Amino acid sequence: MKKHNFSAGPCILPQSVLQQAANAVTNFNGLDLSLIEISHRSKDFVAVMEKARSLVLELLDLENKGYKVLFLQGGASLEFLMTPYNLLKIGGKADYLDTGTWSTKAIKEVQTLGTVNVVASSKDKNYTYIPKNYTIDETADYFHCTSNNTIRGTQMKSFPKTNIPLVCDMSSDIFSRELDFSQFDLIYAGAQKNMGPAGTTLVVVKESILGKTGRTIPSMLNYQIHIDKDSMFNTPSVFAVYVSMLTLQWLKDLGGIKAIEKINNAKAELLYNEIDNNPLFEGSAVKEDRSNMNVTFLLKDESKKEKFDKICQEAGINGLNGHRSVGGYRASIYNALPLESVQVLVDLMKQL
Amino acid sequence: MKKHNFSAGPCILPQSVLQQAANAVTNFNGLDLSLIEISHRSKDFVAVMEKARSLVLELLDLENKGYKVLFLQGGASLEFLMTPYNLLKIGGKADYLDTGTWSTKAIKEVQTLGTVNVVASSKDKNYTYIPKNYTIDETADYFHCTSNNTIRGTQMKSFPKTNIPLVCDMSSDIFSRELDFSQFDLIYAGAQKNMGPAGTTLVVVKESILGKTGRTIPSMLNYQIHIDKDSMFNTPSVFAVYVSMLTLQWLKDLGGIKAIEKINNAKAELLYNEIDNNPLFEGSAVKEDRSNMNVTFLLKDESKKEKFDKICQEAGINGLNGHRSVGGYRASIYNALPLESVQVLVDLMKQL
Repeated sequence: MKKHNFSAGPCILPQSVLQQAANAVTNFNGLDLSLIEISHRSKDFVAVMEKARSLVLELLDLENKGYKVLFLQGGASLEFLMTPYNLLKIGGKADYLDTGTWSTKAIKEVQTLGTVNVVASSKDKNYTYIPKNYTIDETADYFHCTSNNTIRGTQMKSFPKTNIPLVCDMSSDIFSRELDFSQFDLIYAGAQKNMGPAGTTLVVVKESILGKTGRTIPSMLNYQIHIDKDSMFNTPSVFAVYVSMLTLQWLKDLGGIKAIEKINNAKAELLYNEIDNNPLFEGSAVKEDRSNMNVTFLLKDESKKEKFDKICQEAGINGLNGHRSVGGYRASIYNALPLESVQVLVDLMKQL
Repeated sequence: MKKHNFSAGPCILPQSVLQQAANAVTNFNGLDLSLIEISHRSKDFVAVMEKARSLVLELLDLENKGYKVLFLQGGASLEFLMTPYNLLKIGGKADYLDTGTWSTKAIKEVQTLGTVNVVASSKDKNYTYIPKNYTIDETADYFHCTSNNTIRGTQMKSFPKTNIPLVCDMSSDIFSRELDFSQFDLIYAGAQKNMGPAGTTLVVVKESILGKTGRTIPSMLNYQIHIDKDSMFNTPSVFAVYVSMLTLQWLKDLGGIKAIEKINNAKAELLYNEIDNNPLFEGSAVKEDRSNMNVTFLLKDESKKEKFDKICQEAGINGLNGHRSVGGYRASIYNALPLESVQVLVDLMKQL
């Protein structure tokens, strides 16, 4: 049965990528060996890593601009710690924008290393909007924000101009829309939304911002060490890097970020229109800050919940529940989700 | 063509496991969804994580003895840092045994947090033996050793008795031989030898040793946080955990560690006998400390190297080169490598 996979992450990946990944697990590159049983230093896997790196720079239009690409482990959660370890000076301070659970977690990890200043927070309204008109301390060591908030379904549509390093957790919307990525000095993203399976973390860093903290950085948390070793300081998460490479290649073949953004906009428009026009539903986030990746909404008439859940299940819809901390519904419409799946959902909403 | 995979890691996994893993990448548990596109909090994946944990305790005979099992990310290299973060008191000290590259790297990471004392080292003879008769400081916070040294091919046959917590990096020989695992307080292992693919790290920790350092531990480095969240503090490395579970189940079905140890001993005996009896070859490590996982040896007559490499390649042998830092040959004969593959290699050595 054809499934419509709205899971928030790990989430849908292109069918062609899944097929190639499965093939590589039994026989990779015609080697008569599995992808997961060869040395990460073999030429076949080194080529995968190099290809993944170059696709990232190409898709983000960051070639020859001083950026390095890393594929690490530990997810965005470990980046919450690596960011201050690599950028926060001893006795220094960092500015953070608090737009939800993931920002809050990032802020917490800075506190083990130094001073953190929260420039603005949308906690007052349950993180249903993106704060604007805040002031960044230009003497801080860096500014950190979260571009898309999976739980509440908000997304930053623009980013502040600042002279200090701009750091962004793009775990849930990287590669989904055109941005001037060169405005960022450090971008990181857990793979398991638009890039690949869980198990690897993408880091894109402008090398010139490193080495200025005066800290002794533990090896595994030190971006410069990973850069110097081409993400092979230790054994990388081979399968996750390979599937990420395949997904990046799929995106490039499709026409890159410009092409996928059009499809993503069409999906979001279709679904938000139904939410706004169907009296049974309402959106959870403030309109101007709505996410084009995670569409959060409520069913206003609770008595219809059982029926709605049932027809969704019968139609093969997966992963539509809101995050366990907030309830309601959440349709995650990442890059690999076809417009057709959104149409199926919208038709069910109309039927209800 | 049938390959004989002597790769040092990532390394050979059971063929049946590879087939099941490939199937799960296209359709997991008959869900019509891939393993890698479902939520890690779905009941299907939570069951995988629980099964993996219980298999570890069962295979190591550590059930109901106060141990917790974690599947983390970052490999042993991140454990080098997590060990002192979780066990080294502020102003405390730790004892380490230096048996090679991996021990040395572990020792380096302690230095960012406190005092490390190297109780003994085999560096004087290029790490070709295991030091004995050293004294452990019973006032130290813990003692750390590496059970098997992949690069030089040595293995600890016994472990010191001590009253302080005994920590062991078992990355390359866990699940390969019977030991009283309850003598250890903390065991860790990168998956990519005897347990699964690269991308997850096994940690088995006696919970009672935690919480005594007085340190503020960053969340992702804090064992207690991962214990409290059942290894789901953040998104785990789903595919690597799943394949590890399959490999542990394969080992259990085979008869557990007792059964695999017999096979491992037979493989090692066959190969070491040939090395000792064939005048063209010599072993690299001291006999009594030889590893039953990584058999390191030299070809004494360099003029035969080209021929030996050629016949090995023609026979489908993969991964026989020594580590790039030491040269020579290294046959890694992990759990999943069949005796038949060792026989093929030995026959070629005889032919040379």
